This record gives sequence, structure tokens and C-alpha cells, in this order.
Amino acid sequence: MERVGEPVVSRGVVEQPFLVGDVPGVLWTPEGSEGARPLVLLGHGATLDKQTPYLVSLARRLVRHHGISAASVDFPGHGARVVGAMADIVSMWTKPEVTDQAVGELHAVLAALDAEGLGQTGLGYWGMSMGTLLGLPFVAAEPRIQVAVLGLAGLTGPPAARLAADAPRISCPVLFLQQWDDELFPRGDVLALFDAIGSIDKRLHVQPGLHSAVPLEEIEASEAFLAAYLPAAVTDAR
Amino acid sequence: MERVGEPVVSRGVVEQPFLVGDVPGVLWTPEGSEGARPLVLLGHGATLDKQTPYLVSLARRLVRHHGISAASVDFPGHGARVVGAMADIVSMWTKPEVTDQAVGELHAVLAALDAEGLGQTGLGYWGMSMGTLLGLPFVAAEPRIQVAVLGLAGLTGPPAARLAADAPRISCPVLFLQQWDDELFPRGDVLALFDAIGSIDKRLHVQPGLHSAVPLEEIEASEAFLAAYLPAAVTDAR
Repeated sequence: MERVGEPVVSRGVVEQPFLVGDVPGVLWTPEGSEGARPLVLLGHGATLDKQTPYLVSLARRLVRHHGISAASVDFPGHGARVVGAMADIVSMWTKPEVTDQAVGELHAVLAALDAEGLGQTGLGYWGMSMGTLLGLPFVAAEPRIQVAVLGLAGLTGPPAARLAADAPRISCPVLFLQQWDDELFPRGDVLALFDAIGSIDKRLHVQPGLHSAVPLEEIEASEAFLAAYLPAAVTDAR
Repeated sequence: MERVGEPVVSRGVVEQPFLVGDVPGVLWTPEGSEGARPLVLLGHGATLDKQTPYLVSLARRLVRHHGISAASVDFPGHGARVVGAMADIVSMWTKPEVTDQAVGELHAVLAALDAEGLGQTGLGYWGMSMGTLLGLPFVAAEPRIQVAVLGLAGLTGPPAARLAADAPRISCPVLFLQQWDDELFPRGDVLALFDAIGSIDKRLHVQPGLHSAVPLEEIEASEAFLAAYLPAAVTDAR
């Protein structure tokens, strides 16, 4: 893992940009922490990037409230890796070969973070929309992941076959989020993906509204769910 | 409201059986409380009664953690009102006329409690299964209700027409609970009932398992949801 530039420290949270190969990422850790620590990997949605505000917010909550580190990457064609027009980005998740690339990159980033102790005392994944389309196959392929928050995606379009094949292989506890009026993923397709997840311990939270209208309530639920299943590095951080 | 017997006080919670007409009920209040107070009415499931353990647990949580009083009644043919065999009880909720009776009784009990200040600073309803089949029409008919937790029911069988007609009239915030493997209410019927609820502010929590396998997680979610929408009588009770 190559650190890029100086870390920024704000209210006890160290934010450090990095590169693993040519994949840009960012790591949030509690100030002064080192060694074996719990980690949550965060996956952004289409057209967004590793520092989109909802990821930064969730990462800082995990660090400040629970002592859990967090990391995210720019998915292929996103953030610092944008090439071409926005139309190319929007259509990217419809190309099944992107899934293999993204899963491989997440494995590589996890290995690099693991070399510094991150994720050794607990590992989770959180990703909505494209963060589920690309992240669910990663969760299915990575047995070290102990808890996942997925959602805003369904068995719709080109990614559906891969998701339908991988979802039954997931066995960790899952919180799945759905927007009841999602204009991108039909209601039944989303419920079918939730149903396909193999975990015995899973639950679905449905909120009204369009695809992107996830309320703060579910960010708080995500934080609590991840923290409940990962051993916190600190117990008095609240 | 006719008090029946002496109240039992346990860890700050006063439990007082009562009668309103011939409807038996039980009231849980914070020890020493009086005057205008928030209230949650609780509705039990089929074959159960006003003191079924999950209602007592939720009532005591509301009183102890939030200073919110709670009350429940024996629905027609249940608890102290059982007449005939268990088969009669199980089939009772399939008779639409029972809904009118139960709604009328809930209005009468609410009026009696209101005369003592209960519900004057906030009013909620919680009921699962038959507690929704009979309670949803009450919530739709009682504009004073500010928040409701419903679920474990759907647009199934004889009650479906009444529920489908009343659900769109509900406008208060609603948390709706569904068991994904419910053996009594088909999945699609439950989702259709959630969909029919008129409230802008509503959400659905789905858990795996059979009809009665609601996990503690959702009792805690119920408690937090009710408390979030009702002004607590005390703020330092936790």
C-alpha cells in the first residue's frame, strides 16, 4: 500500500489516501491506532467515488463511535479513474466483465490493508446500488467477511445472472436496504435478490422514496448493524 | 374506568387491571405519574391475551425507558372473554363483524383512559397479526394516533377487503414488520398491505423465519420508533 500525500486528521479521524497498484483508495482510522484492527470496506454507487459524502459520513461514524476503521476505493472508471464521458460511467455496471475486475481489486486492496493489521480482528462490507452490484460478488467470494450491508439493487439487467449465482453463497449476517419507489430497480427484482441471499441471519429494511432517497435512519441502522457484528477496537468512544 | 384489584408495582412500573364496560384491560404507568401523559395502546395476536409476554415486555420498556404509559385489552373472545373452544378463537379474526366490535371497544377504552389524562400528550398504537387485523382499522379511524407499529398481516382472507379500504386512510408514521417465511400470510399479500398504507412516512422491516419468530431486534426497533415519535414524559429514565 502506497500512501499518497499527507494524512488529514479531523476530530480523531485520520484520513489517508493510498494506491494499491493503480487503484486509488482512502483509509479512515482512529488517531493513534495501529496493529490488528477491525475494518469495513465501503463501495460507492455509480457515477460517484471513494469520497462521496455518504461514504465519508459512514466511515467517520464507524471510526469515532466504534473504533472501526474503514476504507473505500474508486471502482473502475470512477473518481480518479474516469475516462471518457459520463454516459460511459453510467453504462459501466451493465458490463459483466467489470465485476471480475472490481472483485479482483477489492481482494488486492484487502490484502494490502491486511498487511498493516487492518481487518484482522473483524471485517465487514457496506455498499449500495453499484456498491452491491460489484460488492455482493466480493462478499460471496471472501469468506473472511463477517457482516455486510447491501441494497438498492436487484436481479435487473445484465448483472442479474451473476448476482443470482453469487447471492446464495453468502452466509454472513446481512442488512439489506430497499427504496420502495426505486426508479432504477423494480420492486420485485430487489425482493428477489434479498430472497436469494443465502444467509440465515438476514433482514430487509424498506423505506419509501426514490433510489437515492435513503434516509439518515438507515445510515444509523447500518452503523449499528456493522458495529453489532464486529468486535470494536474501543468500547468507550461514544 | 373501573380499577380491578390492587395494582402491582415492580421496578418502577405500576400494573393495574381494569374494566371499561365489559372489556378487560391492563394499564402500565410509571410509578408516581399522573395528569397528561403519553400512551401507547397494544393489541395482542390471535389466541393470546392482554398480558401475553411480548406485550408486557414492550409495555415495561416503554414505561421504564421512556416514561410512556401503555395499555392493552382482551380482544373479543380472548383472554378473560374466552367462550367455547380454541377453534372458535382461531376462526374469530375471519369474521369481519369482529373488527367493528374491536374498533368500538378500543375507542371506548381510549376515551376512558383519556379521562385520566392518558394519551393527552401523545398517542401510539402497536399490534401484530390479529393486533393489526383489528388494530389497523382503529388506527385509520382515530386521528389522534401519531405513530403506529403494525405487521405480521396481509391482504389475505376475509379481513382483506376492510384492510385494503382502511390502510390508505392512515397518515401517521408507521413501522411495519414482516416475517419473510410467514406461514399464515403469503409474502405478496403482506407487501400489498404495506404498500396500501397511506402514510408518506412509513418503513418495512423484514426478518427471516415463521410468523411468530419475530426477533428481539424488532421489539427494540418498535420501542425506539414509538419513542422517537412521542414526546417522552421523562428524559432521564434510561
